[in-house]
Amino acid sequence: MASHFRPVALEHASRLLNHGPTVLVTSAHDGRRNVMAAAWSMPVEFTPPRVAVVIDKRTFTRELVMASGAFGLCVPGAALADATYGVGSVSGREGPDKFSRHGLRPQAGPVLGLPVLEDGCCAWVECRLIPERHTEEAYDTCFGEVVAAAADPRVFDGGRWRLHDGNPALHTLHHLGAGAFAVAGKVVQARMLR
Amino acid sequence: MASHFRPVALEHASRLLNHGPTVLVTSAHDGRRNVMAAAWSMPVEFTPPRVAVVIDKRTFTRELVMASGAFGLCVPGAALADATYGVGSVSGREGPDKFSRHGLRPQAGPVLGLPVLEDGCCAWVECRLIPERHTEEAYDTCFGEVVAAAADPRVFDGGRWRLHDGNPALHTLHHLGAGAFAVAGKVVQARMLR
Repeated sequence: MASHFRPVALEHASRLLNHGPTVLVTSAHDGRRNVMAAAWSMPVEFTPPRVAVVIDKRTFTRELVMASGAFGLCVPGAALADATYGVGSVSGREGPDKFSRHGLRPQAGPVLGLPVLEDGCCAWVECRLIPERHTEEAYDTCFGEVVAAAADPRVFDGGRWRLHDGNPALHTLHHLGAGAFAVAGKVVQARMLR
Repeated sequence: MASHFRPVALEHASRLLNHGPTVLVTSAHDGRRNVMAAAWSMPVEFTPPRVAVVIDKRTFTRELVMASGAFGLCVPGAALADATYGVGSVSGREGPDKFSRHGLRPQAGPVLGLPVLEDGCCAWVECRLIPERHTEEAYDTCFGEVVAAAADPRVFDGGRWRLHDGNPALHTLHHLGAGAFAVAGKVVQARMLR
């Protein structure tokens, strides 16, 4: 499958997560793979581009991330609301592969080979885990360094989000709770008043 | 000034930040106070309610937070877009008090006495800093425990966000970069497909 995504410069990677979208965390190790939803992630540094994401220690994803030392974060568009809710509500330890169950067809990321999602998604980043045993244990907070990033140029181009009425399926999802998502499509430009 | 906010149960506090709004970080110590914008914050635990927020070590806010061991996070509504951009673009070390400069009139939080914002805001939380020297130094990531929370019942009531066409000034802001904010007002309900 040809990719319609375009690479995002690493110095712009933080912008993909800057506005707080709910993400899909992808992982793989030793022939097993998984995807879960996470509302709790954020950039922590621009350069080098680093992120933090909360991954509960009881999840299958956490097991794969700790074993592989890597995770992907994919930013789903509004058209993936049902899938995002679905993969966030069932463990990958139970039943069939969650990608297949929700019609998600991952590709292999270019640097770490992680499963990354493009169809229906706005962007993805591949991250190498920065081991931080204390925060992983105490707060389920995992730090990572972004080593590759890409986005759909219809919604993120030239280092900027392009959310508008013409691309509603690619508006980002922001989980309010219980499957209700705020959809970020309207944009306002603030004035600089010092 | 009478408050139109209502207390939020601590077990629901994480929901105030769950969808990734840009927040205003408030702080005070020894007669000095400050407010800055932060796009990078997230809950990290439901109970006890804990959060993480990135506060650059060069900021005046960081100085006050480290000295006082506390910070507030206020969730601005869309009507505060200019003020949010403004307080995020200038240091509180320069010039007059940033609250006054932007017409922000803080009240004293009930538990820690932190300046918290209600007019124009959707919600606030008061947090006690959980000292984590390593992550503060390495990632500017500060952890805190929420000890009080309140929200405007016109937009958050019964533990749930109520974003709709009738309260546009209280739709949350999600910073895309350079003063452009996605405004979260449209809500979709995902279907549970396992």
